[in-house]
Amino acid sequence: MRIPDFIWPQWLRDYPRRDLGADITAGVLVSILVVPQSLAYALLAGLPPHFGLYASIFPVLIYAWFGSSRVQAVGPVAITAIMTYTVLLPLSRPGSPEYIVLAATLSLLSGAMVFACGLARLGFLSQLLSRPVASGFISGSAVLIVCSQFKHLLGLSALPTQPWTAGGLLTIFSSIHGMTALVGGISLLMLMLARTWLATGLKKLGCAPATAAFAARLAPLVVVALGSLAVYAGELDRRHGLAVVGNIAGGLPLFSWQLPDAEHVQRLIIPALTLALIGMVQNISMAQALAVKRGERVDANRELVGLGLANITSAFVGGMPVGGGVSRSAVNVASGAQTPLASMVAALVTIFIVLWASPWLAHLPLATLAASIMLAAWSMVDLAALRQAMAYDRADALAWLGTALGVIVLGVDVGIGLGVVLSMATLLFHASTPHMAVVGRLPGSEHFRNVARHRVDTLPHALFLRIDESLFFGNLAAIESYIRQALAQQPACRDLVLVMNAVNRMDSTAVDTLAELNRDLLAQGIRLHFAEIKGPVQDRLQNTALWRHLSGQVFLSASAAFDALAASDCAPAASNSPA
Amino acid sequence: MRIPDFIWPQWLRDYPRRDLGADITAGVLVSILVVPQSLAYALLAGLPPHFGLYASIFPVLIYAWFGSSRVQAVGPVAITAIMTYTVLLPLSRPGSPEYIVLAATLSLLSGAMVFACGLARLGFLSQLLSRPVASGFISGSAVLIVCSQFKHLLGLSALPTQPWTAGGLLTIFSSIHGMTALVGGISLLMLMLARTWLATGLKKLGCAPATAAFAARLAPLVVVALGSLAVYAGELDRRHGLAVVGNIAGGLPLFSWQLPDAEHVQRLIIPALTLALIGMVQNISMAQALAVKRGERVDANRELVGLGLANITSAFVGGMPVGGGVSRSAVNVASGAQTPLASMVAALVTIFIVLWASPWLAHLPLATLAASIMLAAWSMVDLAALRQAMAYDRADALAWLGTALGVIVLGVDVGIGLGVVLSMATLLFHASTPHMAVVGRLPGSEHFRNVARHRVDTLPHALFLRIDESLFFGNLAAIESYIRQALAQQPACRDLVLVMNAVNRMDSTAVDTLAELNRDLLAQGIRLHFAEIKGPVQDRLQNTALWRHLSGQVFLSASAAFDALAASDCAPAASNSPA
Repeated sequence: MRIPDFIWPQWLRDYPRRDLGADITAGVLVSILVVPQSLAYALLAGLPPHFGLYASIFPVLIYAWFGSSRVQAVGPVAITAIMTYTVLLPLSRPGSPEYIVLAATLSLLSGAMVFACGLARLGFLSQLLSRPVASGFISGSAVLIVCSQFKHLLGLSALPTQPWTAGGLLTIFSSIHGMTALVGGISLLMLMLARTWLATGLKKLGCAPATAAFAARLAPLVVVALGSLAVYAGELDRRHGLAVVGNIAGGLPLFSWQLPDAEHVQRLIIPALTLALIGMVQNISMAQALAVKRGERVDANRELVGLGLANITSAFVGGMPVGGGVSRSAVNVASGAQTPLASMVAALVTIFIVLWASPWLAHLPLATLAASIMLAAWSMVDLAALRQAMAYDRADALAWLGTALGVIVLGVDVGIGLGVVLSMATLLFHASTPHMAVVGRLPGSEHFRNVARHRVDTLPHALFLRIDESLFFGNLAAIESYIRQALAQQPACRDLVLVMNAVNRMDSTAVDTLAELNRDLLAQGIRLHFAEIKGPVQDRLQNTALWRHLSGQVFLSASAAFDALAASDCAPAASNSPA
Repeated sequence: MRIPDFIWPQWLRDYPRRDLGADITAGVLVSILVVPQSLAYALLAGLPPHFGLYASIFPVLIYAWFGSSRVQAVGPVAITAIMTYTVLLPLSRPGSPEYIVLAATLSLLSGAMVFACGLARLGFLSQLLSRPVASGFISGSAVLIVCSQFKHLLGLSALPTQPWTAGGLLTIFSSIHGMTALVGGISLLMLMLARTWLATGLKKLGCAPATAAFAARLAPLVVVALGSLAVYAGELDRRHGLAVVGNIAGGLPLFSWQLPDAEHVQRLIIPALTLALIGMVQNISMAQALAVKRGERVDANRELVGLGLANITSAFVGGMPVGGGVSRSAVNVASGAQTPLASMVAALVTIFIVLWASPWLAHLPLATLAASIMLAAWSMVDLAALRQAMAYDRADALAWLGTALGVIVLGVDVGIGLGVVLSMATLLFHASTPHMAVVGRLPGSEHFRNVARHRVDTLPHALFLRIDESLFFGNLAAIESYIRQALAQQPACRDLVLVMNAVNRMDSTAVDTLAELNRDLLAQGIRLHFAEIKGPVQDRLQNTALWRHLSGQVFLSASAAFDALAASDCAPAASNSPA
């Protein structure tokens, strides 16, 4: 009997002993390397920093067991963190006990939604966002994140309501905390240098590319360690008022849960849905990108089950929403992880970090964390995607821009709504401006081509029109108006043949409209014919009034229609008046 | 030099003298026949009854001048009236001075939007609603209208908040006003008899069908006149407390306008938008239906200019929103109208009615008006459209039902929003479940057919797949998963040929996904080829990374691909690892 995957996962059953060393090494490295990131994203979400570590333990174990990606690493991620912050800010004061309960509730709700979507096999829902919109959303959020960190980077004590006015800028400048700005500035500079020059520099010095890239990934940890050391040595926190992480609760997160009250649940439903949608899109696209590189496959629905359960777990053990992290997964892959065992090892090591390394984390300056967040976020701004969309399709570029600006100006939730609307609008816009052509027969063949582009045979009393689009309510007016213009240019026309080989579907509005066209044309003495209707379309049409009252015929091919109409000797169509 | 149409309309320039008599007769008849309707719809909108007459004067003149339909008659219509009532009820008390200002503001805002849409040539926006959704919306609204009139029909003094409980029904029964219910019941009965039997009865008695239909249309006026006479003779209003129209302000509407305050404008923006959208859909579809019957054409954008200006005018002279009325236009056509001159005559005659006939209208019982509204509304419930949609396409039927129920349960504004969402969802649902087929070549021909349905030639190391849908973000996962399943069933496959003759468009997400598929397949030693790509699709693809890195070839026809791959002697594809 086959044991179900969720009881004893496939990868564990078939675990190859030779991967064990690589997975353990990768797990240990990842757990240490992502500590600063976990603390930073918890701060970004408005939570106490150690919540980021908590979220890197049990949710990670659960995802490793139930997820479908072999190397994706879940944990606190920038996008869900900034969404949590923006959603909860109007409801409660960041860091307060109530805020913490709200964050857990948000995690639980969105986790439950994602889990349910996975069970119901709704993984395809993550396709509600086109790539330009998803990319625009992430880029816009990244800009928001960068802006949000200036406060910590410069130690600003006052934030004016209108930061872009002259007065606002003056207020900002006068409230900069000197020591914080110094530490933050140096951290930012070091991180930028590491990112831009370290890997290339090491490679020039003869390092292997993989080693050089790995060294560059180590840089944030080194910068954070140096920052902490400086704080400890110079007592920068006590003497100069530099903000640090401070004493974080030692010990493991307890199973803690306050029942959320109904009012909060109600206010969090829509944000949770947004979070769930974004989490699904990000997680599935990331997992697929990783799987493609390794020649593996991910099961989108099982991926959602894993992600949903991870978020539900997170809600119960010191929670914040988690997701598949870009840099986290990159570190995992670069460290040599082969299976989810690496993530499990990382989770276990993180337990030790929480239990014994807390005092050392206390000296970590917030300005350094802010610098690392800013740099990570900045790399998420994907202007290449905008350029690419611009080159391929203006409407897609517009959707990218609209979503990004929507996020920045109106907030993440309105922005994502705008993105979905823009996705649909793009689709509708394209489908409502269909390509159509008057066609004629290539001499000596059965092929029909556009009369404007090819030398083809036509009939004086028949018009052959090809519609290159499925017919639906949104493009019927355009199609009707094209037909009427084409007919007006050929007054002798007595037979209109619609060549339907590119019409994949017709909705009921289209059937009604064609029935009216049929009646209308008949009144003018013009017969309506169809040619090359696809099987599925024809199957549906056969029960409609259009089919029963069609003034002309249905031809299997345009060529057969051409021969039949050429032979019919210009006989005028029967000119019955409509009923 | 050509005089622009809006200064001196085409129809007036070319006015044929022979139409003058018909137009004048029709105008006089229409003006008298629609008096009860105008009063009733003003009441339905929560306005004093004479506002319905005002709205039948200047807006009608303006529309006749600027509109494009020759026989459509605008005026107060049921749908816009019930929408006005539902939108304004939460804001003010019906009939109060403030309510009147709000109604005028609503008319102005929606009129300005429609006008702007017309100028910007956005007439195609009226296609945002599919027919099933538009029909479901009108049907749902009609049910709302019928329900709203029970109060007037039965003279209910108390309306329970939960009318469907046993207690609620009891309250309703105990608050019925006897005399009102009697007058209302008799009116309803007479109107129903006139509608169902009068025309057929007269025809059986030897009347010409046109005359019989016209007599049936006269019936409401006769019933209203009889009702008024009964009130006058029996003093039913003073002695028995029957509610009547009462003294209506004599004299013409003055140019009156209070500037709406900003807060009201803000609250009315969204309702005005809804009203504008519905008005556009109804007006254009009605105008087109009338034009088709008469072998004429309407210009959707000019139609919107006319409708918008009519509503703006209405706001300034005793206003309520106006639209193209179904029964109003039917009366116009049945009375023999040939040009907009008929509407102009009707407007002028209505001035006389307002000036001199007001005292006679005072005795009109509200219960009789309610009966005529109920019957008119009931005929708008279009269950035939639901049945038809059900037979053709379940998704369309669902959209009809969803919209109708949405309107009834959640209100007109939420209902129409739901309808737009359902229209989009239907479209997306269909497009995201594309038809695909593994195809092979019919022996001795160049045609390719589904291997499951036809006896065709195939190649052991090549898979030919036809995609019967444009590629966009919503259907890529389905397509990818189909491709992988098909490949899994043919492990020897080294060449995948996508036959693209039904792919009318590819969005940028599709290009990205295919580029990834190309890379992924190459890693498995499978080349990706395209065949029969359409010109416009290929033009766009040529600048993309997909095109540059394509592992296989682009064939003009599937048959050419078949020959080339059959000749290539099962050579394995180059198995480069992806970058």
